[in-house]
Amino acid sequence: MQRDLVRRGRLSDDRTGEVMHFLSSMTADREIADMDVLVDMAHLLMLSRQGIIDREAAVALMRALLGFYRDGIPAEAYDEQFEDIHAGKEAVLIGQVGEAFGGRLHMARSRNDEVATCIRMRLRRELIALMEETCTLRGVLLETAAAHLHTIMPGFTHLQHAQPTTLAHHLLAYEQALSRDFARFADAYARLNECPLGAAAFASTGFPIDREYTARLLGFDRPMGNSMDAVSARDFAIEALADCATMTATTSRLCEEMIIWSTAFVRFVTLADDYSSTSSIMPQKKNPDTAEIMRAKTGTVAGALVSALTITKGLPMSYNRDLQELTPHLWHGIGAAEESLVVLAGMIRTATFNTEKMAEEAGKGFSTATELADVMVREFGLPFRTAHSIVGRAVKMGALDLDTLEAAAEEVAGLSLRERGLTPERIASALDPAVSVAERSAVGGPAPAETGRACIGRKEYLTADRTRVASLKKAQEAAVTELIAEAERLAA
Amino acid sequence: MQRDLVRRGRLSDDRTGEVMHFLSSMTADREIADMDVLVDMAHLLMLSRQGIIDREAAVALMRALLGFYRDGIPAEAYDEQFEDIHAGKEAVLIGQVGEAFGGRLHMARSRNDEVATCIRMRLRRELIALMEETCTLRGVLLETAAAHLHTIMPGFTHLQHAQPTTLAHHLLAYEQALSRDFARFADAYARLNECPLGAAAFASTGFPIDREYTARLLGFDRPMGNSMDAVSARDFAIEALADCATMTATTSRLCEEMIIWSTAFVRFVTLADDYSSTSSIMPQKKNPDTAEIMRAKTGTVAGALVSALTITKGLPMSYNRDLQELTPHLWHGIGAAEESLVVLAGMIRTATFNTEKMAEEAGKGFSTATELADVMVREFGLPFRTAHSIVGRAVKMGALDLDTLEAAAEEVAGLSLRERGLTPERIASALDPAVSVAERSAVGGPAPAETGRACIGRKEYLTADRTRVASLKKAQEAAVTELIAEAERLAA
Amino acid sequence: MQRDLVRRGRLSDDRTGEVMHFLSSMTADREIADMDVLVDMAHLLMLSRQGIIDREAAVALMRALLGFYRDGIPAEAYDEQFEDIHAGKEAVLIGQVGEAFGGRLHMARSRNDEVATCIRMRLRRELIALMEETCTLRGVLLETAAAHLHTIMPGFTHLQHAQPTTLAHHLLAYEQALSRDFARFADAYARLNECPLGAAAFASTGFPIDREYTARLLGFDRPMGNSMDAVSARDFAIEALADCATMTATTSRLCEEMIIWSTAFVRFVTLADDYSSTSSIMPQKKNPDTAEIMRAKTGTVAGALVSALTITKGLPMSYNRDLQELTPHLWHGIGAAEESLVVLAGMIRTATFNTEKMAEEAGKGFSTATELADVMVREFGLPFRTAHSIVGRAVKMGALDLDTLEAAAEEVAGLSLRERGLTPERIASALDPAVSVAERSAVGGPAPAETGRACIGRKEYLTADRTRVASLKKAQEAAVTELIAEAERLAA
Amino acid sequence: MQRDLVRRGRLSDDRTGEVMHFLSSMTADREIADMDVLVDMAHLLMLSRQGIIDREAAVALMRALLGFYRDGIPAEAYDEQFEDIHAGKEAVLIGQVGEAFGGRLHMARSRNDEVATCIRMRLRRELIALMEETCTLRGVLLETAAAHLHTIMPGFTHLQHAQPTTLAHHLLAYEQALSRDFARFADAYARLNECPLGAAAFASTGFPIDREYTARLLGFDRPMGNSMDAVSARDFAIEALADCATMTATTSRLCEEMIIWSTAFVRFVTLADDYSSTSSIMPQKKNPDTAEIMRAKTGTVAGALVSALTITKGLPMSYNRDLQELTPHLWHGIGAAEESLVVLAGMIRTATFNTEKMAEEAGKGFSTATELADVMVREFGLPFRTAHSIVGRAVKMGALDLDTLEAAAEEVAGLSLRERGLTPERIASALDPAVSVAERSAVGGPAPAETGRACIGRKEYLTADRTRVASLKKAQEAAVTELIAEAERLAA
Repeated sequence: MQRDLVRRGRLSDDRTGEVMHFLSSMTADREIADMDVLVDMAHLLMLSRQGIIDREAAVALMRALLGFYRDGIPAEAYDEQFEDIHAGKEAVLIGQVGEAFGGRLHMARSRNDEVATCIRMRLRRELIALMEETCTLRGVLLETAAAHLHTIMPGFTHLQHAQPTTLAHHLLAYEQALSRDFARFADAYARLNECPLGAAAFASTGFPIDREYTARLLGFDRPMGNSMDAVSARDFAIEALADCATMTATTSRLCEEMIIWSTAFVRFVTLADDYSSTSSIMPQKKNPDTAEIMRAKTGTVAGALVSALTITKGLPMSYNRDLQELTPHLWHGIGAAEESLVVLAGMIRTATFNTEKMAEEAGKGFSTATELADVMVREFGLPFRTAHSIVGRAVKMGALDLDTLEAAAEEVAGLSLRERGLTPERIASALDPAVSVAERSAVGGPAPAETGRACIGRKEYLTADRTRVASLKKAQEAAVTELIAEAERLAA
Repeated sequence: MQRDLVRRGRLSDDRTGEVMHFLSSMTADREIADMDVLVDMAHLLMLSRQGIIDREAAVALMRALLGFYRDGIPAEAYDEQFEDIHAGKEAVLIGQVGEAFGGRLHMARSRNDEVATCIRMRLRRELIALMEETCTLRGVLLETAAAHLHTIMPGFTHLQHAQPTTLAHHLLAYEQALSRDFARFADAYARLNECPLGAAAFASTGFPIDREYTARLLGFDRPMGNSMDAVSARDFAIEALADCATMTATTSRLCEEMIIWSTAFVRFVTLADDYSSTSSIMPQKKNPDTAEIMRAKTGTVAGALVSALTITKGLPMSYNRDLQELTPHLWHGIGAAEESLVVLAGMIRTATFNTEKMAEEAGKGFSTATELADVMVREFGLPFRTAHSIVGRAVKMGALDLDTLEAAAEEVAGLSLRERGLTPERIASALDPAVSVAERSAVGGPAPAETGRACIGRKEYLTADRTRVASLKKAQEAAVTELIAEAERLAA
Repeated sequence: MQRDLVRRGRLSDDRTGEVMHFLSSMTADREIADMDVLVDMAHLLMLSRQGIIDREAAVALMRALLGFYRDGIPAEAYDEQFEDIHAGKEAVLIGQVGEAFGGRLHMARSRNDEVATCIRMRLRRELIALMEETCTLRGVLLETAAAHLHTIMPGFTHLQHAQPTTLAHHLLAYEQALSRDFARFADAYARLNECPLGAAAFASTGFPIDREYTARLLGFDRPMGNSMDAVSARDFAIEALADCATMTATTSRLCEEMIIWSTAFVRFVTLADDYSSTSSIMPQKKNPDTAEIMRAKTGTVAGALVSALTITKGLPMSYNRDLQELTPHLWHGIGAAEESLVVLAGMIRTATFNTEKMAEEAGKGFSTATELADVMVREFGLPFRTAHSIVGRAVKMGALDLDTLEAAAEEVAGLSLRERGLTPERIASALDPAVSVAERSAVGGPAPAETGRACIGRKEYLTADRTRVASLKKAQEAAVTELIAEAERLAA
Repeated sequence: MQRDLVRRGRLSDDRTGEVMHFLSSMTADREIADMDVLVDMAHLLMLSRQGIIDREAAVALMRALLGFYRDGIPAEAYDEQFEDIHAGKEAVLIGQVGEAFGGRLHMARSRNDEVATCIRMRLRRELIALMEETCTLRGVLLETAAAHLHTIMPGFTHLQHAQPTTLAHHLLAYEQALSRDFARFADAYARLNECPLGAAAFASTGFPIDREYTARLLGFDRPMGNSMDAVSARDFAIEALADCATMTATTSRLCEEMIIWSTAFVRFVTLADDYSSTSSIMPQKKNPDTAEIMRAKTGTVAGALVSALTITKGLPMSYNRDLQELTPHLWHGIGAAEESLVVLAGMIRTATFNTEKMAEEAGKGFSTATELADVMVREFGLPFRTAHSIVGRAVKMGALDLDTLEAAAEEVAGLSLRERGLTPERIASALDPAVSVAERSAVGGPAPAETGRACIGRKEYLTADRTRVASLKKAQEAAVTELIAEAERLAA
């Protein structure tokens, strides 16, 4: 096997296994190895077009690289004696085409810009996946909401029965939140998609490179504007992790609800068996384990974010090896977010909502009391705070019938509701959850008319977002196709 | 003094001071009290226009509110017996205009949507300040860079002398990073600027409210699309904190450099006395304390971000009191970021850069060795890896003169550089930092021609960003002016 | 007013208000000002005893310090023109006794050791309070548990009804966890209680000081063993915050339960009105707000911990101003933990547990199914996994009567339970929650016999812990008394 | 292959690969699989001794388990169709010995107590390793310190030359800090080493188990005192991670110094080649990469800690699947701490300290100015603050010769130092770093006499700590030996 040529000149090499392992980024580099072959190709095409490398070397190298592209990088390149896959891959290349050729690929670049380019390309792919999966989940939420416009349920504040709402209204709240997550991913993508290649170690290079060309070949919008920034910045990683953490904080809330709604107390939902586990000891158990693990993913992603922030803090310019320790946290955090989205979409899609239990609970816990107070204001002229106090007192007394309300009104405000015309019939209709919900037709409210309108409007947004991510994905695929075509033309 | 009427109906009230304090958000509410008066006015204008409140009550209330706007909310409203400023303010209003009028302002809304609206309005102002201050710092960096296009200095990787660069190139890297911070703040602003008012507790209200109208009066782009999302979501707070944390992670790097550059070893910079401290015991000391405190602010902001994420995790819909604990972290984290920007701009503007020491160091530490290796590749046909190894070996031998290089070439690759035409003169010019820098004129590189071009291009970006934030600010000011005018018309 | 003499020699002073505020630790210093007067006294006693300061100066200074001790430090010492209270206090002292005397107190020390000593003294007090409050909460849990040895309730895993247990068993779990929190605080105290005074800036001093003497006067176990470590280390702050974060993570779980148990679905508990809030719009609401805010405190403390860790990361020796930014996070995080303990103890003490509802639920959800499976194993010889599968299948079929079990046994294992002797009566007794609980009398189990034993045993532990913290507190009070006595002797 | 029998009864099973993977803890379970076999053996011995399982089944099972112990658990047990290794292992056992026997091992326990026991056993081993490695590093620091009692170097505050100290003094500061890390690990160990086994799902079991016996067999100090606490608590994991985070925050400081000391500016240290890397492009580079990666490990561990805290927050009793997501963070964070200790010990042991450069720098930057001010106080009767100001002013004027000091004294205090007897000779001796250091012989100071004493004292502490950890390790090994012997007796 080739030894690590990068160390050959300057350093002796008797590193222990522990130190080798400590320095090596090999495990993490597997995540970017595919990207690295594309980066090599683009760099080589540029070197060749600019006349920095001669044709013979270029052809030999490109043939080897196309082999890597088709068959994968040979396993020996991943040996931990190499500090990273870049060193390992170069050693294998030199083994294949000789040092006279193989030693030329790394001209006019450095591992610093190379690895930054690879990470951005891989992260680009992940952000597209995150956008797609966010859309899938939003689609599931919208479909489920559309099917439940009239499914009355209690809404909660402080986990207490508060006011009646509908399942559609509840799910639409999450879709709305997730659309902001989508937007954050899209914004992050736009900021990310600039090409560091050509920054070399940080000071660019004296070779006559063409950064616009490599940027285009690799599907970037443009080269990064400062070569020191290009290799040093990891704000894109922090941003992506923060976006994922924000999103999983939101999905953890939906998971918490699925867990509570699955309890024997609530029974609003039955998760599909596939999304549940049982107990090794309690045979009757059916546990919402996927929701629990997903709730915990917030912690995983928040931890990765903290790692990235702490690692970056206080590093001077330009590249520091600390940044190598950051990258695995990026993949780890993003992976957790992605799998959460996938599993959550499946969980909701396959869940059974117990609409009868929901309806039954909607009327409990005095949850239409606000409506009753509002009726006193609208129809019987009481100040809101007075009506609020009367109804609150009646609840404390234990009932919302006319006698109790009358007693409460006397006690709180020294007035008679009966005299003002309140009847048992009016009380009954005010306390009917369906009536209460239907009246709440302001923008964003739970009335079926309004949630129906919202479902349609949100689907249009979703379609637009899906089109947007599809176009980003297509542009990336087209860039790869073109890059390979160029590479094959050179190697032919 | 008025007692807390909100609790009057439902709850007895013998809370201990400790529990009162624990429940109270009064300290944090001072941050949003000004906003709350504007929210009251907009809500009242809408109630009046929609005929939900009668004219007499509306006029009385608006006169009181205009008094609050001009003179501030009376101090008694801040008593901790009230759970929050909203309850306190209502009690004072009722004291002024009577419960028959004062008890009507809270119709068709809840503290949940009220506080969410206030927080967004206050955060909007902070984001504008962050954008402005980011621009100021970027301006300082660009001016300083423009003055130092030819100030040669060593660039570092791993804090080791690596390759020569210029102070302009170094500072431009930070400007570039900060422009992404600006963009993140701007994106966050756009997502934030939707109005929760009218969502009431979470289920909107049966009163015939006009959410578009209040949104417009308060300078929002539109009402939020789902009333449950409107009161429950705090992703905007997490996003703002994450953006601040990302930015302070970057500024902590510049601070680290100012600290290192201020040492007796490096002496690249002398901070102004105003930005320094001395020691209570060591009379000779002049310490870069502002840079140190600012470096630490990363921790403060990252902590606030973690608090917000942890608090949000696993909360069910809709409003939970946990969210009250989140808000102070928002102001605390953002305040730390803002003051860092202000102080950093002043610190850089008033710093003196020791260009002679920079130039002297630029040639040290074999930092032009890469250029020498590149020359061997470009002019003498060696493969890059071979040239890299030869120069590395010569460094290990202790010198980069022709004899040493020749010996290294023999040892590493069995070849003679002398025979290939390498001369002491060519070596000398390759090792000259200014020559090396001037050759690095690729896009984003340190060559003065390129950094000069970059300074001009970046100033254009900065101007565009400044215009953008000025226009957001102006729109907000115009909205307030119009709101007060409407309020005065009603009260007249 | 005196100006900041510390800056007089080395630095010019035209700092803007913003920079002054940025540098100042005045707000945070209020937390340690009382301690600082004690530190001054102890230092002065030592200087005098060692002959480093002459008697006349010592007497004048001590009289002034005793004035500060009795009446508080004059307000002018807190002006932000002074970087910190130490500089402010010295300026006031010099104003009172002249520079010839007042300028001598700071001999043989530095603000670095002074502030480290103050922080440790203040933190010592907080740790004692944390230990005391932890004991109070544990006492409440034990009393409540002792009153509910026979209160059957469902135990949960995954928030699903799992197996019956008792309220005593449930509360004892928290007491056990909190006793570990107590132990962590006690361990932290022991590590903390070493005296940094005399370390000066970091290199100690050439004056013939007596560090043992000041350490004893200030109630420390011993002087810290290395003067650089003494001023640089903040691991004690991280440890205290980590201990608080760990504890609040545990208390957040109890709060989550109080919130869930307060819902209309569960109704296991009714919190006292004092620990609840209502809604500004929904008059019927009674919300468990104290539990919610307390649940959120985990985020507050975790954030403070992250701040401290991030700030410390990568600081070189010895003192750096970054450490000033750390201290407020310490007080903030610890304060949140302390108030949580106080409020939680009150909340549990005043809560009403609905034992009937608990008993009713204990039998639901097939929660004694494990016991039934165990009976099949113990009395009818089935392998555990087989019994587990049969019962699980019967649950899926919807019932645990003999017919269903028989069908399940046939299907899963091709065997007949009837033939093996299972009867409806045996099933009924196996499914009785009280019987099931009574059988679980292993160490740590829920059987009343065992929880009764546990209550007694735990109270002994608690008494021992209370004695321990009382003795620490007494030692501190005795040290202050002795210090003041010594000071008065000198000043007499 | 066996299918997952745990799911057989209650759940259908058509889980997709994604959901299976999401639910599975297989990857993490590899970390505890070895422990699990020991737990099985201890549980089986207890079941057999208590007569809960019959002898034939016990012998068959124990033979299979001894096979697992000797040869490892068969690979098929790790298939992801099983939710975890416990289910996988049971399936393999049943495959080997049949369900009639294999289905009996899980009697009287649950995966909840089983996994909690495994995690504690594995963590116990890790804590012992952490204690050992901390001792190793402390040993290296003490040896290096002992060799450098007289190596004068500048001490720093704010990274500015402050006062002279010695390398011994500097390294002893770290040893002192690390001894507190050791103590924290030891305290955590004592709290950890209680046995959850027998807690079953959380409510213990009706079988007549003997928890004392299994606890003893597995090397625990005692069974945990409450069965619900036993399966629910993860404070031990948070504590271990917090201890590691605290320690890596300290080691990151030493790494920061190694990085700064390795720069071309400072050159206080040359790291061994084995602990360095070079650049792929800059042939002259020798970078302190191990120190950089280790500095970054603080972020990795802090992130793991945040993950654990966030995951735990707000979980109700007792077991929730969220806890599964916590465990990998535990191993990840602790692993990072451990490898940091190992590599750091090697890095310091093999580093070369440039004592000449240190000595040369010790006199620079007016770093003995404090001593000069102290001399004015001690020998010429000036108040400290006056002396401090005079010397500070002289530094600002640029020199510390008699003329400049005289001018400064006139300006600041209107007095003459010459008249008071100050001579150039006295100034020179006061400014000599070696003299200054030798005078600082207070407890914990840098004077060689004191650091020599400290080295001896600290070695005694270290020896005691080493003895302590050796005894813990030996106790664990003895427990395993005894357990295997018992197991073999049963299987014989």
